[in-house]
Amino acid sequence: CVHAVSPAAERLRYILGEDDDMPTPTLFTEMDTLQHDGDEMEWKESARWVKFEEKVEEGGERWSKPHVSTLTLHSLFELRTCIQTGSVLLDLEGYSLPQIVDDIVDRQVADGLIGPELREKVSFVLLRKHRHQHKKPIHLSLADMGKSNNSPTNPSQSRSMNDISDKPSTDQMKNKFMKKIPRDAEASNVLIGEVDFLDKPFVAFVRLAQATTLGGLTEVPVPTRFLFVLLGPHGKGKSYNEIGRAIATLMVDDLFSDVAYKARDRDDLVAGIDEFLDEVIVLPPGEWDPKIRIEPPKKVPSADMRKSVLNLNELGQVNGTAGGPGGGEDEEMPTPHELGEELQFTGRFCGGLWLDIKRKVPWILSDFSQGFHIQSISAVLFIYLGCITNAITFGGLLGDATDNYQGVMESFLGTALAGTVFCLLGGQPLIILSSTGPILIFEKLLYESNTIDYMELRLWIGLHSCLQCLILVATDASYIIKYITRFTEEGFSSLISFIFISDAIKKMVGSFKYYPINRVFKPDYVTTYRCDCIAPDQAAAMAFNVSVPLADDNMTDLYNLTGLDWSQLSKKECVKYGGALLGNACKYVPDLALISFILFFGTYSMTVSLKKFKTSRYFPTKCRSLVGDFSIIISILVFCGIDYLLGLDTPKLHVPTEVKPTRPDRGWVVMPFGKNPWWVYVASGVPALLVTILIFMDQQISAVIVNRKENKLKKGCGYHLDLFWVGILMAVCSFLGLPWYVAATVISIAHIDSLKMESESSAPGEQPQFLGVREQRLTGILVFVLTGVSIFLAPVLQYIPMPVLYGVFLYMGVASLAGIQFWERIKLYLMPAKHQPDFSFLRHVPLRRVHLFTLVQIICLAVLWTLKSTVAAIIFPVMILGLMVVRKMMDLMFSQHDLAWLDDILPEKDKKKEKDGKKKKDNKRTKAADPLPPPVKIPMDTIGLPSAPDPPSPPSLTVSSPPSLTHLAPRL
Amino acid sequence: CVHAVSPAAERLRYILGEDDDMPTPTLFTEMDTLQHDGDEMEWKESARWVKFEEKVEEGGERWSKPHVSTLTLHSLFELRTCIQTGSVLLDLEGYSLPQIVDDIVDRQVADGLIGPELREKVSFVLLRKHRHQHKKPIHLSLADMGKSNNSPTNPSQSRSMNDISDKPSTDQMKNKFMKKIPRDAEASNVLIGEVDFLDKPFVAFVRLAQATTLGGLTEVPVPTRFLFVLLGPHGKGKSYNEIGRAIATLMVDDLFSDVAYKARDRDDLVAGIDEFLDEVIVLPPGEWDPKIRIEPPKKVPSADMRKSVLNLNELGQVNGTAGGPGGGEDEEMPTPHELGEELQFTGRFCGGLWLDIKRKVPWILSDFSQGFHIQSISAVLFIYLGCITNAITFGGLLGDATDNYQGVMESFLGTALAGTVFCLLGGQPLIILSSTGPILIFEKLLYESNTIDYMELRLWIGLHSCLQCLILVATDASYIIKYITRFTEEGFSSLISFIFISDAIKKMVGSFKYYPINRVFKPDYVTTYRCDCIAPDQAAAMAFNVSVPLADDNMTDLYNLTGLDWSQLSKKECVKYGGALLGNACKYVPDLALISFILFFGTYSMTVSLKKFKTSRYFPTKCRSLVGDFSIIISILVFCGIDYLLGLDTPKLHVPTEVKPTRPDRGWVVMPFGKNPWWVYVASGVPALLVTILIFMDQQISAVIVNRKENKLKKGCGYHLDLFWVGILMAVCSFLGLPWYVAATVISIAHIDSLKMESESSAPGEQPQFLGVREQRLTGILVFVLTGVSIFLAPVLQYIPMPVLYGVFLYMGVASLAGIQFWERIKLYLMPAKHQPDFSFLRHVPLRRVHLFTLVQIICLAVLWTLKSTVAAIIFPVMILGLMVVRKMMDLMFSQHDLAWLDDILPEKDKKKEKDGKKKKDNKRTKAADPLPPPVKIPMDTIGLPSAPDPPSPPSLTVSSPPSLTHLAPRL
Repeated sequence: CVHAVSPAAERLRYILGEDDDMPTPTLFTEMDTLQHDGDEMEWKESARWVKFEEKVEEGGERWSKPHVSTLTLHSLFELRTCIQTGSVLLDLEGYSLPQIVDDIVDRQVADGLIGPELREKVSFVLLRKHRHQHKKPIHLSLADMGKSNNSPTNPSQSRSMNDISDKPSTDQMKNKFMKKIPRDAEASNVLIGEVDFLDKPFVAFVRLAQATTLGGLTEVPVPTRFLFVLLGPHGKGKSYNEIGRAIATLMVDDLFSDVAYKARDRDDLVAGIDEFLDEVIVLPPGEWDPKIRIEPPKKVPSADMRKSVLNLNELGQVNGTAGGPGGGEDEEMPTPHELGEELQFTGRFCGGLWLDIKRKVPWILSDFSQGFHIQSISAVLFIYLGCITNAITFGGLLGDATDNYQGVMESFLGTALAGTVFCLLGGQPLIILSSTGPILIFEKLLYESNTIDYMELRLWIGLHSCLQCLILVATDASYIIKYITRFTEEGFSSLISFIFISDAIKKMVGSFKYYPINRVFKPDYVTTYRCDCIAPDQAAAMAFNVSVPLADDNMTDLYNLTGLDWSQLSKKECVKYGGALLGNACKYVPDLALISFILFFGTYSMTVSLKKFKTSRYFPTKCRSLVGDFSIIISILVFCGIDYLLGLDTPKLHVPTEVKPTRPDRGWVVMPFGKNPWWVYVASGVPALLVTILIFMDQQISAVIVNRKENKLKKGCGYHLDLFWVGILMAVCSFLGLPWYVAATVISIAHIDSLKMESESSAPGEQPQFLGVREQRLTGILVFVLTGVSIFLAPVLQYIPMPVLYGVFLYMGVASLAGIQFWERIKLYLMPAKHQPDFSFLRHVPLRRVHLFTLVQIICLAVLWTLKSTVAAIIFPVMILGLMVVRKMMDLMFSQHDLAWLDDILPEKDKKKEKDGKKKKDNKRTKAADPLPPPVKIPMDTIGLPSAPDPPSPPSLTVSSPPSLTHLAPRL
Repeated sequence: CVHAVSPAAERLRYILGEDDDMPTPTLFTEMDTLQHDGDEMEWKESARWVKFEEKVEEGGERWSKPHVSTLTLHSLFELRTCIQTGSVLLDLEGYSLPQIVDDIVDRQVADGLIGPELREKVSFVLLRKHRHQHKKPIHLSLADMGKSNNSPTNPSQSRSMNDISDKPSTDQMKNKFMKKIPRDAEASNVLIGEVDFLDKPFVAFVRLAQATTLGGLTEVPVPTRFLFVLLGPHGKGKSYNEIGRAIATLMVDDLFSDVAYKARDRDDLVAGIDEFLDEVIVLPPGEWDPKIRIEPPKKVPSADMRKSVLNLNELGQVNGTAGGPGGGEDEEMPTPHELGEELQFTGRFCGGLWLDIKRKVPWILSDFSQGFHIQSISAVLFIYLGCITNAITFGGLLGDATDNYQGVMESFLGTALAGTVFCLLGGQPLIILSSTGPILIFEKLLYESNTIDYMELRLWIGLHSCLQCLILVATDASYIIKYITRFTEEGFSSLISFIFISDAIKKMVGSFKYYPINRVFKPDYVTTYRCDCIAPDQAAAMAFNVSVPLADDNMTDLYNLTGLDWSQLSKKECVKYGGALLGNACKYVPDLALISFILFFGTYSMTVSLKKFKTSRYFPTKCRSLVGDFSIIISILVFCGIDYLLGLDTPKLHVPTEVKPTRPDRGWVVMPFGKNPWWVYVASGVPALLVTILIFMDQQISAVIVNRKENKLKKGCGYHLDLFWVGILMAVCSFLGLPWYVAATVISIAHIDSLKMESESSAPGEQPQFLGVREQRLTGILVFVLTGVSIFLAPVLQYIPMPVLYGVFLYMGVASLAGIQFWERIKLYLMPAKHQPDFSFLRHVPLRRVHLFTLVQIICLAVLWTLKSTVAAIIFPVMILGLMVVRKMMDLMFSQHDLAWLDDILPEKDKKKEKDGKKKKDNKRTKAADPLPPPVKIPMDTIGLPSAPDPPSPPSLTVSSPPSLTHLAPRL
């Protein structure tokens, strides 16, 4: 028989297709069961569904955790029969519960399902009051604590009479659970009960014409649209309960709720159940314990996807693809490497730049308004501390390298200036500019070529470089970075992270050298440890007085010097005045190295722990996310506090307090002409080229990393605009004699991480989703403004010990490694295959090829690391280009299929690959399990087993029991 | 209609009931799918089942993780039709695959299912060679790394021809997977393929009369018993695949595999499928993503339980109870507090002791043989270090308290003696004896009553106490500890743990006092820090010389003293000779406090991390469990190493090196008479009573904790025997002037923890089960023998810094808190209700009552803590009796139901409770959802909905499609 669409699907397709533009409201389902307390009866809430099931724990008087509703097949079939045989009232005009109940009972009597003598009794039962499970305020709980037994009228549960009021009660209004229900939601109420006057079940399914608030029927003030009633004789309570759970689960099912809203008759509902049955997932009884409550999954298939399958006119296939693990091979290929239209080659002069500006302008307002959030405070403080630590470190190093032509002061001012301008006007304001290692090395080499005036040469290099950058901007040259695949990107960012980590550790180890520990110290021999300042012999002292120019010392000082009490001098003074330090304590500094280590490691570990605290079970979510967001700041404050309390003389953060150039013989503006021969102005274009490559690569790879798809940025990127401003700032900084700045990968990643947004989960049990990043300019600007005014913050900043900041650096480095696939793949080396996580690339690429790919990356990284540790660091950016070449060569070593999973396909391969895909697809017929899935999703093969003719059984023949399961019936 | 047993269940009950004594073998299922490679065809393994499903990841060329087989309802129904319409050959005599294939094809032709012209083609396909997924040796993987594409003949997959040999191939024999398959297992092979010559599916289910090894059919050399073949026309591969997965899942289902072994005909198999369908768990498509592979649960319902339900003649109920979360209320009550027959009051003289000995004698051999395991080494080292640290600490304190009448030396010898005797002869050799705090305080108070000779008095108290203990033993007095419920037990063990933790921290903080840090030290002013020994004025020095008896100093010394170079003296010498220490460095000790902190905290955190490493993903299981078992030792070694490398003068573990009493004026034996008046010998019976209570409580509560049900001890306990030896040792130690010993809770728990056994999981995906503890005497004896010979180990032990040992103490204290329910309940205070773990007591007891219960415990603990910190510590054991009284009073505050979940029911309540249970059960009919489940499991209510007569449809009518689903069809 040719595989015909099942009658159920046919029906559904018809009713769901009607007017698809009007989405149906979300349904909240409440299930109440009838409780007998002596002669008293009442309806007690026993479970509720927003998307997942929450059950009232009878003994615990509390809501269970939201969980996936595990049903029995039996209850679903019984429900099907209930709908087939019970009363179905669609679009009933209902304004109050008594009237609705009357209508239901009337219909039942009319259909001959119950005798008229039961009319009163059924109505009486259905109109009993409803008791809901509410969260009990804590003062009531405390008051209740003394009681020894659960009283039957538990004050934690509110009661309400249906017949009193149609307005929501205070209990309903106060219910905080309302927050979890979408605004447009409507309710469906399921009433399940055992009574003694019935001898067969009383079933009714009601859809109201208008959603109506029916007094205290529902826990929350949500109008009721659906009502399902199942009353039956005693003894089958558990079975009724399961049927109730089945209909409740169906009502919150996206597809079935649509059917329920649009059903024209009983058969539509039955078709909906059949369709649901067709899609269910079945767990074998021997492999699963039904008592386990299954936690809601991270992601569920979207309703649209499920509906679209229905509309595809290939209903039978659902079974084949819903087959879980079996369907793994046909997963789509990873979406191809796509950097968006931002990187298309426009071919027009400044075309890219113009597009960047056009793209950025509409966001101007929100770029500021979105910054007003508590998270921003944490982000600003965190990044600020990172920036000034960086500024001080690089400032110090630059000062050493250039004899203070550029020192800490210049570093602070430059960072502030460049950063503020970039964040205010740049294309991607989430990028943080900073000094970087390669530039430091470049400056060092430049300064060592002594014969030429350094500042002027530097100015010209800066100008040339600026010009070159602008040319790159004007020609849309940034488009070439679309060849930067995950391979290159990960290599670069891992390298930078490693440098961060190693620097932090190096600095820490340095403090052990700076504050040597006296390892042979014996507490008992404390009397033998000393360090004395010994006066040089008199003649030497006099000679010293003459030779050293002490211009600002007056005669009194000189007098003092001769009559000096040498034993009272400090170490520095002693050395200054030519004394000799004698004693076994001189070269040791107690405690400082160890306390530095404690502060360093403590800051790091506390930050890591606090970050983890965000996902712990303790304390309310808000409290935890606050602690998580402020983890770095809290750790810094705690360890600054510990340091302060201990009062030890640990190295502190000292910022300059006066605005003046570090070197007194330079001013704030560098003059372009006069000090060097004319050819220098031209020749400086050559080193400038190196700087340009360096800046281009550093800047754009960082930008690619920031703009990663995983970060879900919405405002688009601006590679050309970014480069434009970096170029301009080069020139400005060169004129002012400030260091050059470029995007700093690690700090930028930290910036993004500290601005991540998560959805507040809506339905109970739904996982919060990562929504994106607070894309705005405010945090960046604030960071750099703060950096600028740090000079005035010196009194506060001096309490921050440097080891704490090194701990922050370590954290930044480690955190930026997280989420890099390369890092995950390295970890695979250490894991036995059976423990490896279920990465999708592991399902599709043999482990040995994954390992090989990782190995190539490791080797590249090792080579780069070696290079950057030598003088060759200056060609470091060129090496990044080398990475791209290596990646290109890997096309020869790995199949495009493997690369698609492990990396991205290089752009020019796209066409070839598509052809490949087509060829493979053609082969598909003969080669059943082709390991190379084509890049486009192939339409699914028809699944149902066609076999000998099997005429579709007419519905009339199969309406009664056994149910019409024709579409479930195998078609062999 | 009266609810009749469904025909399927009827059938199953019949065939499964036949001969239940012969268990059917475990089935290993392998599913092979037909692969087309051009014209070549071969069978390729695509999944396998031992208990859970493992799939071959096509792209990844690897086994997936074991997971629960999620099936579609559709595939199960299709499978049902396959069995109904295909060939079923039961008890086929098969000796080789070709012959079996011939038989299958013959049957198909005979039944007219295929035309005779297809005979050859089908046989040809079915006899193609089989390729299995094997783990690839690493050298092959490396050799393969260079290749750029997956060659079709992948060497990682072995091929075998069916027709070559009936013996298992080398590939099969070498397969390590064999270890995971039970020895008696048989194989079922599922062959699924698409061919072009068929126009309708070819289905065969074969059971062989004898399990036969069919050449290379199966991955492992397991004889095949079942064969399922499904060949069909092209285009439905996915659907066929799902049917294959369905039959494979069924074959490993405990119940269905039984059915398959015992089925008499096709209908039995169909009945088996129906029964399976009846038990399946259904997940709604909107709440679960079918792509998620569900990890195997910790526990699955046992097959026996499922079968027994079948035999109960109440098949319909399965549906009701399998309803997952819905069935929660009917969980059994926790098993009542039961300490076993060990604590029954025999009423005979020494009856309990005699039973203890009888119980222990049979285990004598295994008590030693079971000790030979690598885990024992770790346990011995760990507990040994704990014991000597304890011995040194308590020895030092005792020495202070008794003017060295009992010092470190006595402490070591006593520990060794008492411990060895107890572990060799005691009833529960897992208990570790040690000095405890209350006894220390008792000795202190005793010594302070100065007028009476201490050692002699102590001897008499010891003798009296011994006598009293023996009386308690003889009268079976230990039976009263059955009144010690979880409440008392947890209170006691938490208290002891807190004392451990607080002691460890106190000692750590102490080192900051002992080695004060010079907090105002400025490195620059190192020249001003000094500590000089200043000579007293000459006269004072002379006076000193005369007054102090320097008996062993000769004249030379005296001469030296007068001519002393004071500045060369050490701190101690300076003080000794009466010098004064002058200087701002005298009272400070650099670095030692901080390095102590690092060692202390480092040891603790590293141990915790290494313990966690046991459950990490990295490294093979064996390696991890070794690291986990040795975590304490590794941490101690690492931090001893760090300490050694740093070379700082940290406080080290110093053990006495010579065997002689600490105080020179006492010998090794205490004489009972002569020093005190006669009445002391009698009166000492009164303080002895206090000691006896103390020892009894301390010993027996620790024993209860050790014998906890959770520890799954198999050799029984020996409360009377334990007390007997503790009493005897009291007397012996008193004679020898050694401290008294009693069970130490925390170290005993640590001992048990370090000896825990886990099953090596059998089927892939099955969780390892906690099997019990290595109950043996060897580790205990070794620990104490080592303690005894520690005197000779001094050269090694002196490398161990004390802070490291304090870290170990901290770990012991924290680790012994883990797993205490009290502690879990305290944590609940900090958790919002929705994040609380799914403890069973939370499902049954309202949260506020749980909190109230915890609060009472906290208050009790606070009172105890306050008491033990004062001099009242001596009545501490009496306070434990107080805890039992509090527990008794809680019967008034809490319902027995709540207490049953949170604690245990006190024994005398048992009868009353049973009555309660009965009453409640009677109420059950009228009170539907009674929150008080009766303590005995009630027989389940009948579930099926009886309704209007519905004659069982005769099978003949429903044999064809739509299938006979009468038992699934609702019975409303």
